[in-house]
Amino acid sequence: MSWNTFGRVLRMTTWGESHGPALGAVVDGCPPGLTLDEQAIQPFLDARRPGQSKFTTQRQEADAVRILSGVFEGKTTGTPISLMIENTDQRSKDYSEIANTYRPGHADYAYDAKYGFRDYRGGGRSSARETAARVAAGAVARLAIPEVTIHAYVVQIGEDRIDPEAIDLATIGDNPFFCPDPRAVARWEGLVDAARKQGSSLGAVVECVAQGVPPGWGAPVYAKLDADLASAMMGINAVKGVEIGDGFGAATLRGEDNADPMRPAASGKAGDGPEFTANHAGGIAGGISTGQPVVCRVAFKPTSSILTPVASIDRDGNATEVRTKGRHDPCVGIRGAPVVEAMMALVLADHKLLHRAQCG
Amino acid sequence: MSWNTFGRVLRMTTWGESHGPALGAVVDGCPPGLTLDEQAIQPFLDARRPGQSKFTTQRQEADAVRILSGVFEGKTTGTPISLMIENTDQRSKDYSEIANTYRPGHADYAYDAKYGFRDYRGGGRSSARETAARVAAGAVARLAIPEVTIHAYVVQIGEDRIDPEAIDLATIGDNPFFCPDPRAVARWEGLVDAARKQGSSLGAVVECVAQGVPPGWGAPVYAKLDADLASAMMGINAVKGVEIGDGFGAATLRGEDNADPMRPAASGKAGDGPEFTANHAGGIAGGISTGQPVVCRVAFKPTSSILTPVASIDRDGNATEVRTKGRHDPCVGIRGAPVVEAMMALVLADHKLLHRAQCG
Amino acid sequence: MSWNTFGRVLRMTTWGESHGPALGAVVDGCPPGLTLDEQAIQPFLDARRPGQSKFTTQRQEADAVRILSGVFEGKTTGTPISLMIENTDQRSKDYSEIANTYRPGHADYAYDAKYGFRDYRGGGRSSARETAARVAAGAVARLAIPEVTIHAYVVQIGEDRIDPEAIDLATIGDNPFFCPDPRAVARWEGLVDAARKQGSSLGAVVECVAQGVPPGWGAPVYAKLDADLASAMMGINAVKGVEIGDGFGAATLRGEDNADPMRPAASGKAGDGPEFTANHAGGIAGGISTGQPVVCRVAFKPTSSILTPVASIDRDGNATEVRTKGRHDPCVGIRGAPVVEAMMALVLADHKLLHRAQCG
Amino acid sequence: MSWNTFGRVLRMTTWGESHGPALGAVVDGCPPGLTLDEQAIQPFLDARRPGQSKFTTQRQEADAVRILSGVFEGKTTGTPISLMIENTDQRSKDYSEIANTYRPGHADYAYDAKYGFRDYRGGGRSSARETAARVAAGAVARLAIPEVTIHAYVVQIGEDRIDPEAIDLATIGDNPFFCPDPRAVARWEGLVDAARKQGSSLGAVVECVAQGVPPGWGAPVYAKLDADLASAMMGINAVKGVEIGDGFGAATLRGEDNADPMRPAASGKAGDGPEFTANHAGGIAGGISTGQPVVCRVAFKPTSSILTPVASIDRDGNATEVRTKGRHDPCVGIRGAPVVEAMMALVLADHKLLHRAQCG
Repeated sequence: MSWNTFGRVLRMTTWGESHGPALGAVVDGCPPGLTLDEQAIQPFLDARRPGQSKFTTQRQEADAVRILSGVFEGKTTGTPISLMIENTDQRSKDYSEIANTYRPGHADYAYDAKYGFRDYRGGGRSSARETAARVAAGAVARLAIPEVTIHAYVVQIGEDRIDPEAIDLATIGDNPFFCPDPRAVARWEGLVDAARKQGSSLGAVVECVAQGVPPGWGAPVYAKLDADLASAMMGINAVKGVEIGDGFGAATLRGEDNADPMRPAASGKAGDGPEFTANHAGGIAGGISTGQPVVCRVAFKPTSSILTPVASIDRDGNATEVRTKGRHDPCVGIRGAPVVEAMMALVLADHKLLHRAQCG
Repeated sequence: MSWNTFGRVLRMTTWGESHGPALGAVVDGCPPGLTLDEQAIQPFLDARRPGQSKFTTQRQEADAVRILSGVFEGKTTGTPISLMIENTDQRSKDYSEIANTYRPGHADYAYDAKYGFRDYRGGGRSSARETAARVAAGAVARLAIPEVTIHAYVVQIGEDRIDPEAIDLATIGDNPFFCPDPRAVARWEGLVDAARKQGSSLGAVVECVAQGVPPGWGAPVYAKLDADLASAMMGINAVKGVEIGDGFGAATLRGEDNADPMRPAASGKAGDGPEFTANHAGGIAGGISTGQPVVCRVAFKPTSSILTPVASIDRDGNATEVRTKGRHDPCVGIRGAPVVEAMMALVLADHKLLHRAQCG
Repeated sequence: MSWNTFGRVLRMTTWGESHGPALGAVVDGCPPGLTLDEQAIQPFLDARRPGQSKFTTQRQEADAVRILSGVFEGKTTGTPISLMIENTDQRSKDYSEIANTYRPGHADYAYDAKYGFRDYRGGGRSSARETAARVAAGAVARLAIPEVTIHAYVVQIGEDRIDPEAIDLATIGDNPFFCPDPRAVARWEGLVDAARKQGSSLGAVVECVAQGVPPGWGAPVYAKLDADLASAMMGINAVKGVEIGDGFGAATLRGEDNADPMRPAASGKAGDGPEFTANHAGGIAGGISTGQPVVCRVAFKPTSSILTPVASIDRDGNATEVRTKGRHDPCVGIRGAPVVEAMMALVLADHKLLHRAQCG
Repeated sequence: MSWNTFGRVLRMTTWGESHGPALGAVVDGCPPGLTLDEQAIQPFLDARRPGQSKFTTQRQEADAVRILSGVFEGKTTGTPISLMIENTDQRSKDYSEIANTYRPGHADYAYDAKYGFRDYRGGGRSSARETAARVAAGAVARLAIPEVTIHAYVVQIGEDRIDPEAIDLATIGDNPFFCPDPRAVARWEGLVDAARKQGSSLGAVVECVAQGVPPGWGAPVYAKLDADLASAMMGINAVKGVEIGDGFGAATLRGEDNADPMRPAASGKAGDGPEFTANHAGGIAGGISTGQPVVCRVAFKPTSSILTPVASIDRDGNATEVRTKGRHDPCVGIRGAPVVEAMMALVLADHKLLHRAQCG
């Protein structure tokens, strides 16, 4: 079943293919009276934009967003905000060769099995190009949660992990890897460039931290904040794993080591929340935010489109080999960082509104 | 926002607290004409049932399910199936001592911050006892997907991981750990028993494999099969991480090593899907099943209720220490296995129906 | 598709058949901290209860509601509230004769065509007995909108309409017809009794007025307050028409006669809404409440279960005649009044929460 | 709460204001493989288009639809179909005079009370111009139900009702009123023209018949086909009443007169549905289609924008009078007919897919 809407009360519906005339998002349920114009969105799209270094795809897209509705005299009106981004550098011919072949690691075969039909131009709707719409919608969602600051950054490329102690959020924008550890940047330049030249690709892990989330967002049982984050992140193209807080590491801890102890607020004021002396939980307990930073980590597989040939079959069932030429990211996880940020913003904004609905 | 419904067209709504008179689930959207009585559900509840070995909580619950609606003359009617399980061994007094204290690692503080209110009897709605309702509903969902076989089993307790090569699904039911590797059972007996005696607890990793899923279930973008699985699994109590296929391991692979090559079906018949010679993807590409086994792994943190004291505060903001007496699982992940199976069944059955809706 | 959940953020899921062991509702999303026990619900069920006069079915049901979850120490907790009503006077045998026959005016044929299956005991899930669950859920919804007062009453039975000028809401509970015009009561006694004795039945029109709804509830386009009311009312058994405000009468008015003029608030205070000098719109403009009383009218067809024989067919396609013995309301619209009230409460409470979500 | 999505599995999300750059719809969940291009949609938009006779608004809009996604090589792909219509004749200045005044009968005051904010250019999102998006989406929905034929037509303008016996569906397109009774056309020309010249407006009733709906679409309880139709129709701008089948007339009938008797199929073949000898129910019983034509009637109030002055207040609470100049339909119900058709198509297509989901 096609299902292109995300969110419960703040809802984003995206549309568009990699090689169609445009793609976009409709953001519904946004509070009225927020200041919004294209300039509030464009920087986030620019961060995700391809073609900015040799470490990402050479496809050139302006990714200029246009607001078609929902804003009047510079403010959101409370009605649906329609965002459109035109595709300008499609080059469908790059794909003509593989129209009849299933690319391993791609959704080609699964789509065909589902729909009896396939848009072979860059994967159609399964292209990561769709994430531009999410980034645009995420920029709108941020306006609804001004109390929250969100940073996503790459903590691992291939097997090369940064030192968690070395994270300096201020440096994320200084390099083409969204890397918060300046010492890793030089290593990753060599790593990614080598993979690119070899016609290979690399996986990555993106971490995301949201600061300023108050306690109480989220819900018991089936709209848990962490469950919605898991859905949001696993739904990003090429993602194969999601962790909250210590994640899989928590499975190796003992109860007393995994507990996040509390002590009275330093302020000494009644009403001020407790201070936690650890954050193994990643800011979420029982599906509800605790007031600590919300932390998740997202694993991206290596880009499936590679020049190295892989065995496959064609639509008639004959054996063949596939090398994907086109223009592709050697490490799709890098450009995943802005998308992870956008999804975090969408989930948090939705839960802020949901919390307000029930608890006033 | 309280949100106690899971699923899109096959929908489960659960209700009930750990210490109330009963808990239950309403399963809506189930196809008509399926053979169903209590005996089709009870074995799954029995597998999850507490009090069966010294390795799980000593709370004694019959967990006898009763079907209150939706079945006539032994067949589902297509109308909502109401399932009820009475609580028989609540012992609320065990909790009276902690009524005014926030237990670290539990949702106590977050709930209070959200609702201004707290059901301190065993965590109320945040108790893992709610998962009995999911297991019952999952048993109904299985009836809608007879083509699929699902197994969940524990692959890691604390830092002790089984040998993936040694997995023998036939042995899962032979031991109290849902362990598929007989050699690990003896080790885990010692490990879990020691933690219990020390008043500590252990984490675990559960793996789940669904065989027989045809290609084509799932959807691009926001109802991806893997995104819905991630939501389903992360929403289980104590879960902190979810992987599909190689998961975080995929981030360390190169593109050519992560690809799942295809070759023509051994049958040689047109129409038979390809044979994949690897399954790094865990049976899902672009959010849609490929026809390979669907594989996920789920990380459970160690049980938060432990006898070892942890620093905390009370509702008035004063410093205190918490030791949780009650009756608790030393490793909550063990009894998570039947819950993981149930959620897998619910997600797959929902997607089977969703696929049918759009693609006939 | 079976779909047994109503509402967007305050959601009611109902279950149960006319002749099963019980029926019930799960109310999800209710704000925490509201005072609730069975006594807050029972009076509404008693108003709808059958067997209280010769003008309604002689089925005897205590309709005693039991709260199974979501309430702790007398207050709602914000988690799902499970309500159960046991069936005590089913007498399935009354229906055995018609098990193989399609009753005209009933859903028998349509259900069988849909599900290939039929619960012939009183219509199963299509029985108006399901509305007891709505009335119970509606009683909970009322707690969330203490600012609103709702009255539903019968304004027409068969062709006998009351004088709108004579409406005295204080008299609704004084008679078995929920009739607000004491002069009509005597006439209706004769009318309904005659129909009953003739083995016939009568239709009715129920009007519902909600006072105290502030301006701003509702939403443009697809969650209009009036659209949701229309869905809520048309979904009640035997309903065939819904009007808001002047309804079909508005189609005969000219623009200047249908306008609801406004003047400054009598209080003279800025911030006080306008005073409307008419209410043709029924308190809703553009799908949003205006602050005037919300008014709707609902048409009930005559009860389909009658002793007068009607031509039909059996499941094998043979011609037959149907007389429905059982115990039936000669005018099902009468007992529709408490159900209309409950649905009004559910829609308003849901929209109050939705408004709060977006607009704070 | 803003809520701009309609449908359960076939879902339409609309966006856009009367005076913004464009408006549109995203249709999600459409089956793949249907033949679709702009020419399949444009005729339905042309039927609704303003400015075609002196009996409708003189606003000139080409209403040319553009398909931006979801179609590849002339076929639907199963992914979201984005439809855009540019606004070309906005003339915002017409509205500047009333920017600070609440127009009686319009949503102006209610919107302002809700959002603290108002788009005064033609009502923004509450303008009937939004219905162009529904008509475009409805054209797509029709492709999913080729077995069904839908006709909507005007049966009453003001107090002048056509003779139901005289209905000739073939003549609907021959006149500017969507009138199926040629004898009424001349009368209505005089009636509407007079109202226009007087600066007044008229209400109307639109009837809609869907032929070819098989038995079994719809659902018990909260997704009843008639409840969804009621929501769909009441959500159209200016609608104040909805009837299914005999509607309010059914309230005046006796049970034996309202029953729709059945007899064996004339074909004599087992498996062929019964023949009904009446259709008081309008083709729906218990929320499920019976195989008879689905019939509903929809009441439109007179256009609120009139030249006749009506008492009102301004945003500061001062008394004033409002005359709405602009360019308006003297009888907005006339152009409602294509919108009613579109909503019927959307509801039926959605229920066809929902039925398939549960019942295969």
